[in-house]
Amino acid sequence: MVTQDPSFDHVVAVTPRGAASYEVVVGRGLLGAVDRFLPDGVSSLALVCDETVADLYAPVVRQALERTGLALVEIRFPAGEASKTRATKARIEDAMFEAGLDRHSLVVALGGGVTSDLAGFVAATFMRGIATINLPTTLLAMVDATVGGKTGIDTPAGKNLVGAFHHPLAVAADVGTLRSLDPRLVLDGLAEMIKHAVVADEAAFAELSLLPSRLDSLDSGEWAKLVADSIAIKAGVVSDDPTELGRRRILNFGHTIGHGLELLFHWRLSHGRAVALGMVAEARIAEKLGLLQAVDRRRIEDLLDRFGVLSLGPVDSGALLKAMARDKKNRAGRLRMALPSRVGAMHEFDGRWVTDVPVEVVVAVVEELWGQAG
Amino acid sequence: MVTQDPSFDHVVAVTPRGAASYEVVVGRGLLGAVDRFLPDGVSSLALVCDETVADLYAPVVRQALERTGLALVEIRFPAGEASKTRATKARIEDAMFEAGLDRHSLVVALGGGVTSDLAGFVAATFMRGIATINLPTTLLAMVDATVGGKTGIDTPAGKNLVGAFHHPLAVAADVGTLRSLDPRLVLDGLAEMIKHAVVADEAAFAELSLLPSRLDSLDSGEWAKLVADSIAIKAGVVSDDPTELGRRRILNFGHTIGHGLELLFHWRLSHGRAVALGMVAEARIAEKLGLLQAVDRRRIEDLLDRFGVLSLGPVDSGALLKAMARDKKNRAGRLRMALPSRVGAMHEFDGRWVTDVPVEVVVAVVEELWGQAG
Repeated sequence: MVTQDPSFDHVVAVTPRGAASYEVVVGRGLLGAVDRFLPDGVSSLALVCDETVADLYAPVVRQALERTGLALVEIRFPAGEASKTRATKARIEDAMFEAGLDRHSLVVALGGGVTSDLAGFVAATFMRGIATINLPTTLLAMVDATVGGKTGIDTPAGKNLVGAFHHPLAVAADVGTLRSLDPRLVLDGLAEMIKHAVVADEAAFAELSLLPSRLDSLDSGEWAKLVADSIAIKAGVVSDDPTELGRRRILNFGHTIGHGLELLFHWRLSHGRAVALGMVAEARIAEKLGLLQAVDRRRIEDLLDRFGVLSLGPVDSGALLKAMARDKKNRAGRLRMALPSRVGAMHEFDGRWVTDVPVEVVVAVVEELWGQAG
Repeated sequence: MVTQDPSFDHVVAVTPRGAASYEVVVGRGLLGAVDRFLPDGVSSLALVCDETVADLYAPVVRQALERTGLALVEIRFPAGEASKTRATKARIEDAMFEAGLDRHSLVVALGGGVTSDLAGFVAATFMRGIATINLPTTLLAMVDATVGGKTGIDTPAGKNLVGAFHHPLAVAADVGTLRSLDPRLVLDGLAEMIKHAVVADEAAFAELSLLPSRLDSLDSGEWAKLVADSIAIKAGVVSDDPTELGRRRILNFGHTIGHGLELLFHWRLSHGRAVALGMVAEARIAEKLGLLQAVDRRRIEDLLDRFGVLSLGPVDSGALLKAMARDKKNRAGRLRMALPSRVGAMHEFDGRWVTDVPVEVVVAVVEELWGQAG
């Protein structure tokens, strides 16, 4: 499945504030070359992945890791968000202790966002923190989870409620793995790539507009460049605001409405669709507030529409608002959103990157997009 | 129980590398003035304490916190190390979510080391980290847990194996709480204070040598100064080495043998006694290795002996070595110890603060101190 000759096509340097900088390498055949990313002084290794990814890619990764001669334990968990629990975290930790891992051990997280969240959180708290190397195997994990250091698990009270900021030592994004990716999962990543372009990089937006609506050749060199560019956008935004209090909030574009839709539809909408729909709604909100011109709003909408994800049954705006109020980011019942001012830039006023949005504007946009007629 | 007029006797500034600096205030009547330590922008509060401490001190702390007008939830757990588990952590977190706490909430940790470890770890990972204020109520927690940012829980595989570095926003050490402290718990703290003096401050050692062997007046102003001095020693050592790779290792004096004894006696030895015994043994090891003069070794032993903690039944040196090998710090079976070079300074060679100790030297010292005749 995976090319044997590794090509290190692109390298993005990430410099989180208050933590060591690291590199994200985007290329092909990287899974089989993961041993090159290990630092000196590592005592032993844990390879953590879900069962689906294990069947596809664990053998080639294990083979590369075994070249180091270090003791290696492979720990699998059932695929899916349902595994992002305290119980799975405890089981992985106990397996690591059982295997004799210590504070000089290193975790290799192989898989999508669930794996980097879960295995990253395990590493963040294992003996108060050990190193990780991330091997993302989904487009979303490549363009989103590789930068920012967010790790965590879900609790009965909600998603990602318990976790830590923990940056990896290195990330190797092997686009060869994208060939096996479910098209809906491709969309999850693509929505984030479009978001990155809208919030900070018009040239990247233009490049994405050249994509065919039916995506293939996801393992090509051209695609590797698009992925690396998207990672670089996020790295630029996050590096000057690592704890999510200032400009980093622009990365929330599409997510206030999007997360509300996810809650309203009980997570039956894919994340990519929810964010795509959220971006369309929030762009319309920005237009209604006089922050965004109609022509730019239409450009955003047209690009998203190309991937056929914007149809949605009727949405009750009252129920959506109630769902949004349960979002941890909507503090004290106020609706605040990061909104675009044009394609490639976000609205900023007096150092603040979020805008208070009147409830009536949200209701009007929801009716317009997904009212009974829609 | 607690003085109503607070006196802020001493302030120690702590400047951890890579994290915000904070102050440790040592004084009297501080529990009833905890509201003065709260920063702006806090949304709500959780007061976390064990049931024993709750009965003694929660009312006065709650009264002070209620003056802020902020929503407050009090969360209690059963006293003792047995509560330092994943299950207790989850229960505290769930109670916090239930009470509607968010990422702007603050945790007040009221109690001894178990509480600051547990509540600190909860805070470290609650929505990826919220602020804490520590109110230590044991001598050990005051002189040890207030500096260094270590938090964590125990797992079936051992103590403190899962955790995080998380520094408090402020610490208020109210020596009024020491009046109610069990004498064995006083010894736990005193052993650490003696350790701090041995590793870095001969003047503090001289001051401790003036203490009466039967400790009382633990809530006096003089005692507050001794406590503050001890905190300042640790703060000095830790501030230039926050992640425990360099000079901070000198704080491990007495703990290699001490921790081995704790494991050997299945934690039936108090931590203070184990560390006191460990310091005596490690000082003798330093002497045998030619690093410490006999006169200094004797000064350390005499001071510890004054508190009547050095008697111990026979110890099987083989069993002790086996127990020490299970310690997470004894990597790859090598015995390494931080050893004193005189009272107030530790041995350093070529930038390294730990010394490889031959097994035979450990065996000889164990036989000498706690052999069959002992």
